[in-house]
Amino acid sequence: MDIFEKSLQLHKQLGGKIATEMKISANNADELSLVYSPGVAGPCLKIHENKEDVYKYTIKANTVAIITDGSAVLGLGNIGSYASLPVMEGKALLLKRFAGLNAFPICIDSQDTEEIINIVKNICASFGAINLEDISAPRCFEIESRLIEELDIPVFHDDQHGTAIITLAGLINSAKLLNKNLSDLKIVINGAGAGGISTANLLLYAGIKDIIICDSKGIISKNRKDLNESKKEIASLTNIRNIDGTLADAVIGRDVFIGLSKPKLLTKDMIKSMNENSVIFALANPEPEILPQDAYDAGAKIVATGRSDFANQVNNVLAYPGIFKGVLKYGIKKITPEMMKNAAFAIASCVKENELDYMRIIPNAFCDYVCDTVADSFLK
Amino acid sequence: MDIFEKSLQLHKQLGGKIATEMKISANNADELSLVYSPGVAGPCLKIHENKEDVYKYTIKANTVAIITDGSAVLGLGNIGSYASLPVMEGKALLLKRFAGLNAFPICIDSQDTEEIINIVKNICASFGAINLEDISAPRCFEIESRLIEELDIPVFHDDQHGTAIITLAGLINSAKLLNKNLSDLKIVINGAGAGGISTANLLLYAGIKDIIICDSKGIISKNRKDLNESKKEIASLTNIRNIDGTLADAVIGRDVFIGLSKPKLLTKDMIKSMNENSVIFALANPEPEILPQDAYDAGAKIVATGRSDFANQVNNVLAYPGIFKGVLKYGIKKITPEMMKNAAFAIASCVKENELDYMRIIPNAFCDYVCDTVADSFLK
Repeated sequence: MDIFEKSLQLHKQLGGKIATEMKISANNADELSLVYSPGVAGPCLKIHENKEDVYKYTIKANTVAIITDGSAVLGLGNIGSYASLPVMEGKALLLKRFAGLNAFPICIDSQDTEEIINIVKNICASFGAINLEDISAPRCFEIESRLIEELDIPVFHDDQHGTAIITLAGLINSAKLLNKNLSDLKIVINGAGAGGISTANLLLYAGIKDIIICDSKGIISKNRKDLNESKKEIASLTNIRNIDGTLADAVIGRDVFIGLSKPKLLTKDMIKSMNENSVIFALANPEPEILPQDAYDAGAKIVATGRSDFANQVNNVLAYPGIFKGVLKYGIKKITPEMMKNAAFAIASCVKENELDYMRIIPNAFCDYVCDTVADSFLK
Repeated sequence: MDIFEKSLQLHKQLGGKIATEMKISANNADELSLVYSPGVAGPCLKIHENKEDVYKYTIKANTVAIITDGSAVLGLGNIGSYASLPVMEGKALLLKRFAGLNAFPICIDSQDTEEIINIVKNICASFGAINLEDISAPRCFEIESRLIEELDIPVFHDDQHGTAIITLAGLINSAKLLNKNLSDLKIVINGAGAGGISTANLLLYAGIKDIIICDSKGIISKNRKDLNESKKEIASLTNIRNIDGTLADAVIGRDVFIGLSKPKLLTKDMIKSMNENSVIFALANPEPEILPQDAYDAGAKIVATGRSDFANQVNNVLAYPGIFKGVLKYGIKKITPEMMKNAAFAIASCVKENELDYMRIIPNAFCDYVCDTVADSFLK
C-alpha cells in the first residue's frame, strides 16, 4: 500500500483529523447557566463595552484561521476549496501538535481576490490570527498585503514566509559551517512564485546582496517585458548586474542554489559550474530539483530538500507554529521582516554548536524547543 | 457574586470554552507524512475527483457552523459580532456536549443581508450543516430561506425553529394531559419575531387551525397597513375571523398563550378571560411574560417558561443537538416542516406516560435519550 492509499485509509477511519472539545463539561443546570444563557450575557456585555476584551473571554486569544481558496494546493495545483480541506485540517492539527493552538480550516469557494479579501475581513471575530495557505501567486501577494493593511490581527502566508524563514535559517547555519559571511553569499533562486519571491525578499532583508531569481522563462531582469507586478518589483531589487539568460547561465559562479520550482530542473553540470563547496536547497516537493546523491556527486557540500527521508529537511512546521504562538502570546498585530529574520536566527540557533554538521543545518521537525524559541524571538 | 460576574470569571479562567483537539497524535515522521504532505494528497485527489467524498475523509461529515451577525443576541439586542462570540462558543460547546458534534463559531462582521448570504455560501466546504443564530427578524427569514435554496447542506435557524419545535412538543403533551385534541386548541402567540412566526407556522403545519398572533401593536390582521412581508404572510394564514384589537382582546376565550415577547406583558386578568384550564407558555428570557405563581393564581393549569429554575423549561437544547445529529447521520440536505413536526413528537415522547404531569410536559434538558430520539425521528 503506497503512502497515498495509506493516508486515504487513515482519513476514512478518522472521519476528520481534528475535533472540537469542551473546556468545561456543562453537566448540570448551574454550569449550563454559566456557559450559556443567562450567565453568558456577562462576557458578552463586557466585550460590547470594550472590543479588546474579546481576547480575555473567548477563543480569539488562542485560535488561528487556516484560510485557503484551494488554488495552489501542495504540488497538486488548483484543486478547489473542497479538495483542499484535508491539507487545511492537517495544518490545523499541526498547529495544535506543535504550538498548542486551536485552528480551524475555512476553505473559501471563490478565487476572486476582492471577494476573498472581503470574506476574510468579515469573519475575523473568532480568530486571533490568519494563516493564508495554498493560494496561488500572484493573487496571494495582493490578498496578503491588503489583509495585513486592513485587519487588526496578524496575517501570515505560510507558503511565502514559512519557506523563506526556514531557508534563511538553513543558510545561516550553512554559512557558519563554511566559514563564510551570510551577506557575501551569491545566490540563485529558481522559482518566482509565492515561496521564491518571499525568500528573495527575506534574504535581501537579512543583508544578502547578490541574488538572481529565475522563473520558467529564465533569469528575471529589468530587460524582461513579460513580468507581472511582483516579478517587476523583485527585478528591481535583485540581479545587480542585470544579466539575462537561462538557469544554467544563472548558476555559474554562485555559492547557493535555492529551488522552489519543479523536479529535475537542476543538473549535475549546472552544479559543477557553481563555486566550490556549493549549497543546494532543492525544495520542490515531493521530487526535488536534483536528488541529494547526484548533487553531492557533482561537488555540492551541503544539500537540503523538502523531504523527511533525506537529511536537512526544510520543513515549514519548524516556523509557523512558533510564529503563531509568538504573535498570540505577545499581542503582535503585524509580522515584520525583522521578526521573520529573528525567527530564522532562532531556528538556526536550535541546532547546537556541537550538533552542527553538513548533514544537520536545520533542526529536526520534532525538536521540542523550536516552537518556543521562535515564539520568544518576537520579544527582541 | 451574581451569575453574570460568575460567568465572567469562568470565561476569563477558561480563555475560550472550546478548543480544537487532534484525533491522531502525529508524533513521528511517518504519521506526519500521512496527516500532511505528502500522503494527504491521497484524500485531496479523491475529493477532487468526486466532491461528495469530502464527507468520507474530512470533518465536514460531523461539523456544524454556528453563524451569527450579532444583531439579536439573547435579550441583549444588536451587540455585534465580537460581543456575540461567547454565546456562539457556548452553542458550539453544547452541540458537542449533547450531540457529540464538532461546531465552530463564525461571527460575521456585516449585517447586510446579501453580504451575509454570500459569505456563508462561500465558506461551507468544512461544514456539514449551518446553524444560524441570533440574527434579527425579518432579515433572518430571507437569509435562512435563501441559504436553504442555494446551499447543498442543511440550514437551521435555531431561534426560529428550535423554539417552535419545543413549543409544539410542550403543546402535544399539554393536550394529552388535558384530554384535548391538539388541532382543536385555540392559541394566541404574542411576539412576531423569529420565534413567533416560526412557531405559528409549525403549529399550523401540525394541524392547529385557530391561531391569533400579536406584535407590539396588537393583533396581526389583514386590516393592518403596517406589516412587513413576513407579518403579511402570517396574517394570511392565521386569525381566521380576521379580528383586530389588543393582546387583551386576543386572549379572550383562548386555550393557550405563547409568549415570545417581553417581560410582564401578560396579566392575571388576561388569564382570567381565557378558557378554563389554560396553558401558558411565558417564554420571554430571562423574565417571563408572567411569573408561574401569578399564572396559576389566575387559573392557569399548565405553565412553561424559558427558565431552568421553574418547572417545564422550554429549552432549545432539547431540539438542535438532535436535529443536527439527525441531518448529519442520515445525510439530509433540507429540513422540512414534516421533520420538525416529527422532532416535536419525538421530544414529547421522551416524557414517559407515567412521568407526564402538569409540572412535567417537557423532558429535562439533561435527559440523555432526547438527542438520539430526535435524530432518529428523521428516519420517518
